[in-house]
Amino acid sequence: MSEITFKQLEKSASGDRYDWQDLKSQIKFDADGLIPAIAQQYDSKEVLMMAWMNEKSLQETLETGRVCYWSRSRQNYWRKGEESGQIQTLKELRFDCDGDAILMLVDQTGPACHTGRRSCFYTLVDKDHAEITSDPLIDPATLYKK
Amino acid sequence: MSEITFKQLEKSASGDRYDWQDLKSQIKFDADGLIPAIAQQYDSKEVLMMAWMNEKSLQETLETGRVCYWSRSRQNYWRKGEESGQIQTLKELRFDCDGDAILMLVDQTGPACHTGRRSCFYTLVDKDHAEITSDPLIDPATLYKK
Repeated sequence: MSEITFKQLEKSASGDRYDWQDLKSQIKFDADGLIPAIAQQYDSKEVLMMAWMNEKSLQETLETGRVCYWSRSRQNYWRKGEESGQIQTLKELRFDCDGDAILMLVDQTGPACHTGRRSCFYTLVDKDHAEITSDPLIDPATLYKK
Repeated sequence: MSEITFKQLEKSASGDRYDWQDLKSQIKFDADGLIPAIAQQYDSKEVLMMAWMNEKSLQETLETGRVCYWSRSRQNYWRKGEESGQIQTLKELRFDCDGDAILMLVDQTGPACHTGRRSCFYTLVDKDHAEITSDPLIDPATLYKK
């Protein structure tokens, strides 16, 4: 096993392939062992949310195809949809150029946001105002009764 | 001036507007005073990159309409395109539900990535492999000669 760095990948051409085992030790987790992960709906391309993963939640996500984050507030694994039933199925997982951010294309069942909205990014800053741009698809009281 | 929290916005309806001055003190910067900011091309919806902002770079971005990050490696303001000429014009800026992540719709001139690629997310993890999915639009040696 010969390790490869994200730096070395920079010169690669489209279609070049490397052993994932040789790259994954190079992922840049932060001081808390976390990496930011963006979830984007694979067909509409809407950005749904950004949350955090640790090494194990990333591994679980890749193995199961169901997105698992690390909840910083609960200090526990956060299997998206475990409580609400609104799961995220992984379609594609990518790293950025320096290996310190993840972009996932997912298929999100219903709302991604705990407020019941499709996306967490519903607060638009428009000059002197902050404007709410979407309504809940489902009442969160219903969502978390399950 | 009466402050409003992101928590209070959760119950708001689409179209509700608040004074930005009353919300901006509630942004959740991390221990280093930073917040992650995702840049998405406004028309193609491609996610281009994720970087970090501090309070001042956010303010500059909103005031000038040109995206300014905080570079953690250089510990300095990073006015996107200052060196490379590949600027990011802000179309829209949004916060997520708990005010600890930013999504920007931008118009990116040429490559967003320092490798000369359009997007930083060119390393796809596919089962046992990492695969490079795009080539540079411009040789980075040319890009940073300016």
